[in-house]
Amino acid sequence: MTQTHDSLTDFEAQFADHLELSPEAQDLLFRAARTANAFTDEPVSEEQVRAIYDLVKWAPTSMNNQPLRIVLVRSPEARGRLVEQMSGNNKAKTSTAPLVAVLAADTDFHDELGKVFPHFEGARDLFAGNDEMREGSALLNATLQVAYFILGVRAAGLAAGPMTGFDAAGVDREFFPDGAHRTIAVVNIGRPAEGAWMDRLPRLDYDEVVTAV
Amino acid sequence: MTQTHDSLTDFEAQFADHLELSPEAQDLLFRAARTANAFTDEPVSEEQVRAIYDLVKWAPTSMNNQPLRIVLVRSPEARGRLVEQMSGNNKAKTSTAPLVAVLAADTDFHDELGKVFPHFEGARDLFAGNDEMREGSALLNATLQVAYFILGVRAAGLAAGPMTGFDAAGVDREFFPDGAHRTIAVVNIGRPAEGAWMDRLPRLDYDEVVTAV
Repeated sequence: MTQTHDSLTDFEAQFADHLELSPEAQDLLFRAARTANAFTDEPVSEEQVRAIYDLVKWAPTSMNNQPLRIVLVRSPEARGRLVEQMSGNNKAKTSTAPLVAVLAADTDFHDELGKVFPHFEGARDLFAGNDEMREGSALLNATLQVAYFILGVRAAGLAAGPMTGFDAAGVDREFFPDGAHRTIAVVNIGRPAEGAWMDRLPRLDYDEVVTAV
Repeated sequence: MTQTHDSLTDFEAQFADHLELSPEAQDLLFRAARTANAFTDEPVSEEQVRAIYDLVKWAPTSMNNQPLRIVLVRSPEARGRLVEQMSGNNKAKTSTAPLVAVLAADTDFHDELGKVFPHFEGARDLFAGNDEMREGSALLNATLQVAYFILGVRAAGLAAGPMTGFDAAGVDREFFPDGAHRTIAVVNIGRPAEGAWMDRLPRLDYDEVVTAV
């Protein structure tokens, strides 16, 4: 199927024709979407976040373990506590975004395995007996889910501003006092304001990333 | 904008209307797509992998650092070496998939920062002086890119079978003898065969994952 790709060079377009995803969806999720550093005042509703979650929850994790947990920082008091933990420039962005989400791995995800992976009875115990494996699996899979979530924000027509520059132990302490969660990213969400981003940065070429053996 | 979502309940559909992504694209990437355990013989071409990479390369990483490296296991000799390192049931799946990709984090990603993040001159040295931070950033960001890649495979109309059950040190040794890479996932890729998957497993509800403060 030949499609039109106005934003692509001829060289790129010959490969894009191998995609089944429509050019509009390619642009919405990948090619035109950008990490936003500034947002309009338009609020992000509960319904929008539900729509995002109900889409991205279907993407795969190991043993369907789904360790991602999301805290929506809605109150000014909680926003203040979060901003305190952010690094440098991230403080200002986190102060002004319409919605800020803290994305963390729940290292007690194994308590849900009986429900989400019911055909393997010993799954919970396997992880209960090995803290290192449990934490590793929580971090790996919740990080996959952070990526799915970022693309889900874009699927809702919003811009995401994911950040890893913060005091992780501080965010864990403030937002997950049970000690069983590890914060992976903080994501600003909203409609991008004018001048929300700089020029696009270069990406590595295929031949710098992909080899065949 | 009201859209039709044949595969959704009325409860889900009211939220899906908040998505800008078309229902067809939602299905292709998330709702109808499944982790495949069996594939047809149809080969996966170089052009298809290029199309996938040229799409997903645009998704965000911290400081645009792009640590993901991909090895396409094309030769029978290399396939044999990989299968040797896979666990249990993954051996058979990895033996028969049309294409298998090893996805790893390059812990020397900082050598590219001068090119991919040129406006911050000290970026390379910041990471060169801190092995722990460098390895952490490589793993976190390459894992995000693994998730983008899985969705990219689906965007090409193919099915992915991502696996984390393998001897990671063994795969690193066999495929990255420089000692600077950490394998994150092995992904089988192809057209799903009949009976490629079991019934869909349950996902956690919104209220089990998302809280607001």
